[in-house]
Amino acid sequence: MTEFRLDWQRAGRTGTSEAVLCDAKSAAQIDAIITHATELGQRLLLTRLGARKFSRLSVPAREALDYDAPTRTAILGGLPEPRGTGRVVIVCGGTSDLPVAREAARTLAFEGEVATLLADVGVAGLWRLIERLDDIRSHRVVIAVAGMEGALFSVLAGLVPCAVIAVPTSVGYGVAEGGRTALHAALASCASGLAVVNIDNGFGAAHAALRILGAAPSAAT
Amino acid sequence: MTEFRLDWQRAGRTGTSEAVLCDAKSAAQIDAIITHATELGQRLLLTRLGARKFSRLSVPAREALDYDAPTRTAILGGLPEPRGTGRVVIVCGGTSDLPVAREAARTLAFEGEVATLLADVGVAGLWRLIERLDDIRSHRVVIAVAGMEGALFSVLAGLVPCAVIAVPTSVGYGVAEGGRTALHAALASCASGLAVVNIDNGFGAAHAALRILGAAPSAAT
Amino acid sequence: MTEFRLDWQRAGRTGTSEAVLCDAKSAAQIDAIITHATELGQRLLLTRLGARKFSRLSVPAREALDYDAPTRTAILGGLPEPRGTGRVVIVCGGTSDLPVAREAARTLAFEGEVATLLADVGVAGLWRLIERLDDIRSHRVVIAVAGMEGALFSVLAGLVPCAVIAVPTSVGYGVAEGGRTALHAALASCASGLAVVNIDNGFGAAHAALRILGAAPSAAT
Amino acid sequence: MTEFRLDWQRAGRTGTSEAVLCDAKSAAQIDAIITHATELGQRLLLTRLGARKFSRLSVPAREALDYDAPTRTAILGGLPEPRGTGRVVIVCGGTSDLPVAREAARTLAFEGEVATLLADVGVAGLWRLIERLDDIRSHRVVIAVAGMEGALFSVLAGLVPCAVIAVPTSVGYGVAEGGRTALHAALASCASGLAVVNIDNGFGAAHAALRILGAAPSAAT
Amino acid sequence: MTEFRLDWQRAGRTGTSEAVLCDAKSAAQIDAIITHATELGQRLLLTRLGARKFSRLSVPAREALDYDAPTRTAILGGLPEPRGTGRVVIVCGGTSDLPVAREAARTLAFEGEVATLLADVGVAGLWRLIERLDDIRSHRVVIAVAGMEGALFSVLAGLVPCAVIAVPTSVGYGVAEGGRTALHAALASCASGLAVVNIDNGFGAAHAALRILGAAPSAAT
Amino acid sequence: MTEFRLDWQRAGRTGTSEAVLCDAKSAAQIDAIITHATELGQRLLLTRLGARKFSRLSVPAREALDYDAPTRTAILGGLPEPRGTGRVVIVCGGTSDLPVAREAARTLAFEGEVATLLADVGVAGLWRLIERLDDIRSHRVVIAVAGMEGALFSVLAGLVPCAVIAVPTSVGYGVAEGGRTALHAALASCASGLAVVNIDNGFGAAHAALRILGAAPSAAT
Amino acid sequence: MTEFRLDWQRAGRTGTSEAVLCDAKSAAQIDAIITHATELGQRLLLTRLGARKFSRLSVPAREALDYDAPTRTAILGGLPEPRGTGRVVIVCGGTSDLPVAREAARTLAFEGEVATLLADVGVAGLWRLIERLDDIRSHRVVIAVAGMEGALFSVLAGLVPCAVIAVPTSVGYGVAEGGRTALHAALASCASGLAVVNIDNGFGAAHAALRILGAAPSAAT
Amino acid sequence: MTEFRLDWQRAGRTGTSEAVLCDAKSAAQIDAIITHATELGQRLLLTRLGARKFSRLSVPAREALDYDAPTRTAILGGLPEPRGTGRVVIVCGGTSDLPVAREAARTLAFEGEVATLLADVGVAGLWRLIERLDDIRSHRVVIAVAGMEGALFSVLAGLVPCAVIAVPTSVGYGVAEGGRTALHAALASCASGLAVVNIDNGFGAAHAALRILGAAPSAAT
Repeated sequence: MTEFRLDWQRAGRTGTSEAVLCDAKSAAQIDAIITHATELGQRLLLTRLGARKFSRLSVPAREALDYDAPTRTAILGGLPEPRGTGRVVIVCGGTSDLPVAREAARTLAFEGEVATLLADVGVAGLWRLIERLDDIRSHRVVIAVAGMEGALFSVLAGLVPCAVIAVPTSVGYGVAEGGRTALHAALASCASGLAVVNIDNGFGAAHAALRILGAAPSAAT
Repeated sequence: MTEFRLDWQRAGRTGTSEAVLCDAKSAAQIDAIITHATELGQRLLLTRLGARKFSRLSVPAREALDYDAPTRTAILGGLPEPRGTGRVVIVCGGTSDLPVAREAARTLAFEGEVATLLADVGVAGLWRLIERLDDIRSHRVVIAVAGMEGALFSVLAGLVPCAVIAVPTSVGYGVAEGGRTALHAALASCASGLAVVNIDNGFGAAHAALRILGAAPSAAT
Repeated sequence: MTEFRLDWQRAGRTGTSEAVLCDAKSAAQIDAIITHATELGQRLLLTRLGARKFSRLSVPAREALDYDAPTRTAILGGLPEPRGTGRVVIVCGGTSDLPVAREAARTLAFEGEVATLLADVGVAGLWRLIERLDDIRSHRVVIAVAGMEGALFSVLAGLVPCAVIAVPTSVGYGVAEGGRTALHAALASCASGLAVVNIDNGFGAAHAALRILGAAPSAAT
Repeated sequence: MTEFRLDWQRAGRTGTSEAVLCDAKSAAQIDAIITHATELGQRLLLTRLGARKFSRLSVPAREALDYDAPTRTAILGGLPEPRGTGRVVIVCGGTSDLPVAREAARTLAFEGEVATLLADVGVAGLWRLIERLDDIRSHRVVIAVAGMEGALFSVLAGLVPCAVIAVPTSVGYGVAEGGRTALHAALASCASGLAVVNIDNGFGAAHAALRILGAAPSAAT
Repeated sequence: MTEFRLDWQRAGRTGTSEAVLCDAKSAAQIDAIITHATELGQRLLLTRLGARKFSRLSVPAREALDYDAPTRTAILGGLPEPRGTGRVVIVCGGTSDLPVAREAARTLAFEGEVATLLADVGVAGLWRLIERLDDIRSHRVVIAVAGMEGALFSVLAGLVPCAVIAVPTSVGYGVAEGGRTALHAALASCASGLAVVNIDNGFGAAHAALRILGAAPSAAT
Repeated sequence: MTEFRLDWQRAGRTGTSEAVLCDAKSAAQIDAIITHATELGQRLLLTRLGARKFSRLSVPAREALDYDAPTRTAILGGLPEPRGTGRVVIVCGGTSDLPVAREAARTLAFEGEVATLLADVGVAGLWRLIERLDDIRSHRVVIAVAGMEGALFSVLAGLVPCAVIAVPTSVGYGVAEGGRTALHAALASCASGLAVVNIDNGFGAAHAALRILGAAPSAAT
Repeated sequence: MTEFRLDWQRAGRTGTSEAVLCDAKSAAQIDAIITHATELGQRLLLTRLGARKFSRLSVPAREALDYDAPTRTAILGGLPEPRGTGRVVIVCGGTSDLPVAREAARTLAFEGEVATLLADVGVAGLWRLIERLDDIRSHRVVIAVAGMEGALFSVLAGLVPCAVIAVPTSVGYGVAEGGRTALHAALASCASGLAVVNIDNGFGAAHAALRILGAAPSAAT
Repeated sequence: MTEFRLDWQRAGRTGTSEAVLCDAKSAAQIDAIITHATELGQRLLLTRLGARKFSRLSVPAREALDYDAPTRTAILGGLPEPRGTGRVVIVCGGTSDLPVAREAARTLAFEGEVATLLADVGVAGLWRLIERLDDIRSHRVVIAVAGMEGALFSVLAGLVPCAVIAVPTSVGYGVAEGGRTALHAALASCASGLAVVNIDNGFGAAHAALRILGAAPSAAT
């Protein structure tokens, strides 16, 4: 018995590719998956691959991967030609939220979508967000990334007509530790129509954005 | 000082209209809001208006409203001409989830979007879902409504490329009481790209769907 | 043994008067307290006194009280001459939060402080708050009252230099039910210097405001 | 006083042997237990024995044990002759769940039961499970191992008549961290008749399977 | 669109019949389901049907049902001939746990299995359990029903070799309110091999027992 | 099968009598228990018997009981001769905590122990507690009853050498709702040697006190 | 300003000595406290002093202390003459619970009380407890130490008349992780009169035992 | 795109300066922020900067900072002339709470406010607090810092008329671990008018104190 069966048909079925969530896998398991994908000539995105575990992969695996430590993502087989640009904007509440925001950007890039990234536009200094509103509104999908109390989600969703995907992060301490406060703030927002993903799940937000773009027939052209 | 200030500009700003969440408002407050909207000739959607509270509204208010007890929604000013049909499908895990599913349908109808509703396609009898897959895939947005363990969300998202919005419901008992189990299942789904809203929030799912449809330029024509 | 011992020295010690929290007391206990205070000629504030329990009080007790059903407060012995005006503003996120906001206002009035009340300036329609900023800034203390995701607290605290007291309310459903989400949002706010009180605790917010006003020597003159 | 008293009569009483849960025991305590069992000529299963703690055991203890690092199990005294084969199948949602699945397999083997193991048949790619259904149905007991949202439990229980034991794992992050989401999904499943054990408890699932097999008189022959 | 689609094939697939969970369904929905089943000549089990909701069903529905208020179960179409007797024993910690224990017994009877019921054998008076041990051990499957701290589960599982299914109940107050304490005690038991179902889920325990009995080939003859 | 088996030997075994926890029992079950005890000539204490349920008992049962509505306790067979006086003092934080305090007093009286009760000595007005310190110190066991933040437990335990049993109550709202805050305060007290019982468990505190008094040989004479 | 003020009067006030909880103190702070106590000639008990932190203390401090790594306790100034023996028995559910049990024993010894310790008498093998019952009953106070599901507390309290202090431990995983399950089991026990302390708080249990022994006048002689 | 946008206007808007929360930022990000602030000649406060992360900053950054390891704070640009003295007192429950208390003191000093610090005046030895009451009362604002059960907050607020800001700390174990117990005790205090900040948030308490001092017109002169 092999330990994994990759779902190469996924892109055909759901429009987004199989990816490998690494944090509960051993280095040996990840090595085997990379070897397998390489043999098949398949591109692959790996997420939540910490620097320590990356360093324990085999040399060929490490060399085959385009690894980015802050986002803990690795890409096997390189990026495709961009299919879309200027359709998704990633708005990031604080500097600390950037790794999650960039995980979303890398995931989008893996599928050929080039996103705009706006960093450090948190609510404590509202002018930073207001300055960027016209830029934000020019995109079809907004991925909002914020931790702590997550007030950014409501403020943003109350001001733009775009599809808004909220990514709560685990940035914070005390009652905010772990990200539940930001998550609940996104879900309970008084500004309606927010779509929410799991804590720190930049990857999932990117896939939700791709489903949304795919939902627009014109987008596929 | 009046007790409320309605945000009539919201549709211009975000693409979806102001609505009135009734469960923590008194009958007197709701009466005043209805009178005010009527004077301005504004249409209005009211949500989470329980039958007992509805019965305590003034006679003119009750007569002005199109009230639906199971969904606890009321519409002032009637429905608009449909702007879109066949773009949103609401998939409902169990008979008990129908009030939430229909709250979504009513909210969409209030904005001119006519949704398809598929009831009782839960995962315990998987054939019920499989039979409908082609029908579901023909829509741009899927609103999936389920309580208990919320397995429907993952199964569905693994099979269709549409934008999928998960609405966990408070249907269930024991560990499922209150809807946290279904909510967490949606957020932690192994099928990527799910967008999640608050527990029992059919209204919010509808608004998220409208933002998504609006994100597709062709959709607005 | 009597069942209660009122702490009439409290105002001397802490600057705010003894009050009676009614929700876990029987009607008989409350009757006895009112009789006792009346005999001593003491004024008294009663909080969380529901309409049903009020109706079960003795006739003399009911007649002696100035009762306000929405806020569930009752005042024995009338209001004092105002000592201060225009120093405290109560900013209220939604119409549903008004009972808590008014509990704060009534508590302040009981101590001679006349507060300004601004209703329905929630974050979903940010312009409602922005319009009032100059008015808000002219006060020394802001009591902000909001439920659901409590984004109002951060937005407000990021824009004004006043002392800001956040009162999270139990308004909301799903993950917001009970008020924990708004409470945690206030505590985890990215805008620093917020002071927070218990959920639905308009009474406590008023006392905190009085302590703050008392902390300013000029305020006592 | 000795620090432990092993319950050698357990197999006679309950049909499954005493085992040693190691994660809260010191290396010195484990060494003493192994010495004691060796002196008595007793076989022994040790669970949750991390690699670091294993390395701190005495040399004779380490040499006496058949240790398996990924499952953190160690066996003293070797495996018995198989008593049964093809009666239990372990179905594993993802590659990350394999250590728990294999803890179950090792525990069964310690009692003479040889289990079938099917890896990586998660719900995100449903075809992987459907392909194996006939194979699964040919067993008496199914041990289903899954983390994240645990949708596998419901899908499986809705499709097979076997006894199904769900082992939720702590694989996942955000709301799934620690395994509560998968646990609650198993308990609240819309597919009835699931039997659930503690998070990551492959050992307990194996013992439950043995009790079930023992419940069938024919099985004991 | 009809509001429900019953899964009549379930017994063929999983060995246990479709049942109707009533607590989140309206009386109108339940009436329609009963009419539909009656027309098809199908037997049906209804669970969690409270007395108040039962009284709101149509007269023909009420007359067609064998309703038992304490267990909140109703049976349409009568009981089948018994297929098995003396194979399942239901052991009940306290008098307060009896409704859940009897829900299990009624569910078993609906499928033709006649269970033994032992009431009030809680751990506070251990002799009551010890007296019954031989009787309990003579069954293949034990369903243990207990609330509060759920110590019964561990004591019982440590003493008998049968398959043991723990049903935690919501009996208790303070930290035991809602049944989480008993549930966690069952899951964390130091006596291995316990299989656990959701809080108050006598129905699910019965189905698990039926799956277990079905797992024994001799049992099917 | 009868539905209950009372543990009449308990007093011999543990020193405190069997009691009947009524809140999850039906009126019919309680009636049967009273009839049974009456036939045997046994005294019996019933706890958590709400006024509504008491009113649904049979007339003979109601007449046989000494019922006290605020504490929800009923005594069958009257009180015994006092065995001890002045050994236990019950200190009560607020008027709202009195029903729990009196449940403890009634339970003690049922076993022949006459307790002192000091009401409304909460920490907000510390002088009320300080005044009573000498009186409190003259007892062997202190039962401290408090809700909200439970600061009374620490203050008291830091000032007296007696055995101190903390009974947290569910008095409070917001974060204090349900009594967890007071419970955790008692358990985490910086004043060492506090013994804690379940929320609202005046009955259990009384039994703990009786065990403690029994632990002193002189007390048994 | 010095960083600490030791409460040397505590023994006079409460009967048990001041102790130093070390886990949140820096090595420098602990060093200073030891120096201070040494200068005053005071004995001192230090708890939760991990081996790593102990190794960072100054050489004189380390030499002055009688340190015991498994219990993380240190004693400055040696043990006193025993004042009592055979009055307290510590009953320990599993080998893993021994460090907490021995923290209690060391704390008692520091105050001159010599306790009996019975290890590994868990409920999974009930005979181990039953064998020791007469021995246990001969003591005035039982300190019961158990993790996981904490069934030991109920079984024990149902069988002995002694004062019983339950110390839940953090031994366990999954739902038992952190000790909440054992804590809640102790608080919700169906066997009445249990007194409970915080998770892993062997120190507090010893102090509670000392208060209880002090409550018996004969005990002080 | 740069990764941060500092909000230099904040002091003008809210009266307190921008600060940098470091615990979720990388050393590279912090280096860049320090370089940027140095170039602009701006003073800056950094919080939650652990010793390990500080050691990974660039040499110029480390040399430019006044770093204090126990409080994990660093100050760039030195302290200003004191603007106020003797207006704020920081009262600290235990030695373990000192790092949080000193974070508050350092934050105040950064803004020119010199605070009084009173250490180790916990409730277990109440005399330590009582001795200091007159000193405490002479200040306008009290910052109370306590962990475990947080009884200090109530005792203090019941005795002084000052503005009281409660800072719960994460000091404690078992149910107190993480600081929720102290936080809830502060929020649910029976002594009214407490203002609460997040767990371990000495920084936020200082900013709240500055807002309060600013609220007094005389304070601004």
